[in-house]
Amino acid sequence: MTLRARALYTFQSENKEEISIQENEELVIFDETSVDGWLQGENSRGQRGLFPASYVEIVRPRSGSNLTDGSLSPAGSPGNDSSYFHSSPNATYSTQQSYYDDDDDDWDDWDDASTVVEDGDPRGRGNGANGHSHQSSYSNPNVYYRPKPHMDRQDSISSSRKGSMVGRNLNRFSSFVRSGVEAFVLGDVPMMAKIAESYTIEMGPKGPQWKENPQPFTCSIEDPTKQTKFKGIKTYISYRVTPSHIGRPVYRRYKHFDWLYNRLLHKFTVISVPHLPEKQATGRFEEDFIEKRKRRLILWMEHMTSHPVLSQYEGFEHFLMCGDDKQWKLGKRRAEKDEMVGAHFMLTFQIPKEHQDLQDVEERVDTFKAFAKKMDDSVLQLTHVTSELVRKHLGGFRKEFQRLGNAFQSISQAFMLDPPYSSDALSNAISHTGRTYENIGEMFAEQPKYDLFHMLDMLSLYQGLLSNFPDIIHLQKGAFAKVKESQRMSDEGKMDQDESDGIRKRCRTVGFALQAEMNHFHRRREVDFKEMMQAYLRQQIAFYQRVGQQLERTLHMYDNL
Amino acid sequence: MTLRARALYTFQSENKEEISIQENEELVIFDETSVDGWLQGENSRGQRGLFPASYVEIVRPRSGSNLTDGSLSPAGSPGNDSSYFHSSPNATYSTQQSYYDDDDDDWDDWDDASTVVEDGDPRGRGNGANGHSHQSSYSNPNVYYRPKPHMDRQDSISSSRKGSMVGRNLNRFSSFVRSGVEAFVLGDVPMMAKIAESYTIEMGPKGPQWKENPQPFTCSIEDPTKQTKFKGIKTYISYRVTPSHIGRPVYRRYKHFDWLYNRLLHKFTVISVPHLPEKQATGRFEEDFIEKRKRRLILWMEHMTSHPVLSQYEGFEHFLMCGDDKQWKLGKRRAEKDEMVGAHFMLTFQIPKEHQDLQDVEERVDTFKAFAKKMDDSVLQLTHVTSELVRKHLGGFRKEFQRLGNAFQSISQAFMLDPPYSSDALSNAISHTGRTYENIGEMFAEQPKYDLFHMLDMLSLYQGLLSNFPDIIHLQKGAFAKVKESQRMSDEGKMDQDESDGIRKRCRTVGFALQAEMNHFHRRREVDFKEMMQAYLRQQIAFYQRVGQQLERTLHMYDNL
Repeated sequence: MTLRARALYTFQSENKEEISIQENEELVIFDETSVDGWLQGENSRGQRGLFPASYVEIVRPRSGSNLTDGSLSPAGSPGNDSSYFHSSPNATYSTQQSYYDDDDDDWDDWDDASTVVEDGDPRGRGNGANGHSHQSSYSNPNVYYRPKPHMDRQDSISSSRKGSMVGRNLNRFSSFVRSGVEAFVLGDVPMMAKIAESYTIEMGPKGPQWKENPQPFTCSIEDPTKQTKFKGIKTYISYRVTPSHIGRPVYRRYKHFDWLYNRLLHKFTVISVPHLPEKQATGRFEEDFIEKRKRRLILWMEHMTSHPVLSQYEGFEHFLMCGDDKQWKLGKRRAEKDEMVGAHFMLTFQIPKEHQDLQDVEERVDTFKAFAKKMDDSVLQLTHVTSELVRKHLGGFRKEFQRLGNAFQSISQAFMLDPPYSSDALSNAISHTGRTYENIGEMFAEQPKYDLFHMLDMLSLYQGLLSNFPDIIHLQKGAFAKVKESQRMSDEGKMDQDESDGIRKRCRTVGFALQAEMNHFHRRREVDFKEMMQAYLRQQIAFYQRVGQQLERTLHMYDNL
Repeated sequence: MTLRARALYTFQSENKEEISIQENEELVIFDETSVDGWLQGENSRGQRGLFPASYVEIVRPRSGSNLTDGSLSPAGSPGNDSSYFHSSPNATYSTQQSYYDDDDDDWDDWDDASTVVEDGDPRGRGNGANGHSHQSSYSNPNVYYRPKPHMDRQDSISSSRKGSMVGRNLNRFSSFVRSGVEAFVLGDVPMMAKIAESYTIEMGPKGPQWKENPQPFTCSIEDPTKQTKFKGIKTYISYRVTPSHIGRPVYRRYKHFDWLYNRLLHKFTVISVPHLPEKQATGRFEEDFIEKRKRRLILWMEHMTSHPVLSQYEGFEHFLMCGDDKQWKLGKRRAEKDEMVGAHFMLTFQIPKEHQDLQDVEERVDTFKAFAKKMDDSVLQLTHVTSELVRKHLGGFRKEFQRLGNAFQSISQAFMLDPPYSSDALSNAISHTGRTYENIGEMFAEQPKYDLFHMLDMLSLYQGLLSNFPDIIHLQKGAFAKVKESQRMSDEGKMDQDESDGIRKRCRTVGFALQAEMNHFHRRREVDFKEMMQAYLRQQIAFYQRVGQQLERTLHMYDNL
């Protein structure tokens, strides 16, 4: 029996294996099992190919019904369980054929616009019974994504105040509110009986710092390999990920990194989670892009493993160690059900006993804020300069030297034209000089691979880390404002001293955590920028030496003329 | 008594010491002695300053006459000797105050448009009696200036033929005609009883060649020094010129070089006279321009001293050796009265006895012509590339590295902003790296002085030498055509065999001379291009090594962080 479907949305094909479909167009489906969210079929114009499963609804004839009597079952409409596929453009689909794909999630990492939708709330979780979990809950992705830096930085003081309660911020998108830190500071997060997780902040020589991970490790990312599925039509890249303390590799796709990254954002309030390398819609499998993504994933991983808190995260451990499909699914769900996220994560800190004057903390944070702003600016400046230098290396510099090489060749050719005076040795030497400069042009074009690219990778990582800080600093600012407000209310007799003290105490926790994170940032920054500058200078020296050596060899050709 | 003058031509002032004058404007003259061809005075708008003496005529009231009765004496009008100054924009003027200026010539080397007019014909020479020789003859400068390359290259065959005479070319501007070579070949130049000059062409391993100068020498040009006159208002540059075989310096201005150059053009048919470095109207005394002119005069001089014929020229000897004002004038006039110029110069050659088939010579010349054309093209190509590289060094390259340096400095500044974590040593190292790259930017900007400029100087010299060849080759083509024509006429009985044989013999002389000049060009070219390439490569190697060393020193700053 021919399986039919109707297009719910217009889809414009962008690759040759895809076909365009029009809203309301009738389609023939070849196989109702979607792969990576795509179905294969034929449109009304006879074109055959792939289209997104979520853009169509399968038409299932019931007894006595036909295509026009309302038997169309809109995909993804809640409560409509008569359709086998619940689809919406944002829903996720499953496959059973793909290498290392999970039943209950199959995002595609080639779609820049696609946002992995995660729901920390177990409510709404699908019924995974027949291997096809139907995720019908559509969460607002804003909730889990940090806003762009410098957005949402309205101060939260001007909030409504009701009676004796310290007011809550009206701006529900402020990071202070979203992160749950407001709730935590106000004491709305109940202490839990048993907290398995614990992160210690200790006093170091330069102030509060995260206690080191007692089992430090590193992790390599190697050998990006193209994998195919769906009879070779859809492809993806798999990376070999080997943590040093395990020594056994696991294989991960970008989408797995992306899943982990979103878990991190969800859970780790007050920590500057390194951004993943950017997605890229087109040319995903071009060699340069793969290399660049790999280099940046390596840097990202270095920051993950070097972070005392992030490196100990259970979900990260799962990501690094799990090599079994079934275990992967279980661990993934466990991570998604983790309760110690956002506001609750604040409960996991063990802070030093030392007294810190809140005003001092405030000043400390302000200094860091000014530093971070300036560093953000200068990292951006260096990024621009470096990008332009790359462009010059690939374009202008190469072109100039190649032109010089061509001109020398042309001189050499002229010299050969008058045979009695062709002065072969000289002409050869000049021709060789021409080739040398053409070669030097190529060396200029190649050089960014050895130096500037690494600098750009590092700068990109730091742009991400720095862009997190305004929001993180905002948490401390918000907490501090609550302290002042509660103190005033307590002074006016509108609040119990106990409650006010509780707010102050919890604000200290926020301050300690922020300072520990600032401290960690500085320590990494010193290590990274030293390494980055040394690597750059070493490669530059090697480059100029290579050019000099090439020229020296060329010069010798003129020795015995 | 106020001395008055009237402007013959409109003059637009170009420097602040000059004033503009309008045609027919009445002027007041402060001092009727012109300096370097300039008078000082005041125009009708009350502006005071300098204007060209040749643009005005002095108004001398005669008895009973006034300004309107025709007492104006147009300068330079022949036979009008009532005016003290004969002036036309092309006439030359004298001064008695200037350092090393001659009475009967005072050209200015700052006027690009001014053409030194020389008259080889003693007729029309002034009456040097009172130290003010009045050169009234105005020769067409075309006669002595080689045309631009590839002009005037019409073939001369289609000339009118009258009776039994071999026809003369109608195109009087063809180099064949202008140079006198046509007249020489046709036997119109009578052999002279006694010829003091003699240049020998001998058979070398690669064909005819000039016999070497038995007393070879070199000549240094050093120490360009600014000299002033006219109370410091007018300045010029004097060069110390020291020939190796004399060891005693003379001091020469550009205008002396220019005088010599024009004598060379006038005399040396079939020889590719190296062009002088170009004139430049503005910024004459900027350091860069002075340096460039000096470098190019040195190259020019190398070619003069290395040329077996040019280096033996009496006028050149005079230029190199004469340190006495009075002797200078005498030698200068002797050179200007030289009869062995143009057509007569062809009489000075001693040619080998060897028979050369004219057809072979023709082929030899054609090959050289193709070579010279290609070399001309490639020299132009290399000149363009090199000029662009200079521009890049001074602009793009410098800017890129300075930007990189600035960006590093900016990073370093950011790092200093959070004192507990300012990591001074690292910040210093990064700041030092910034300065290093700023410095490397400056090194890029400086580098052309050490390599590309020299290449451009050499290429410019060769552009000049190559641009002479089309005309020189044209001489041989014209002579060869005359041989064929006379042979045909002789065969038809319209010409004596003797006359035909004479034409053939004289054509051989032209062919030998041209081949000797080609041979000389090739030998110089080999020497010069080898030297040019070696010098360039050596400087390039030194440059890349210096950059590498700078970076190595900078890298060491990161060693003990």
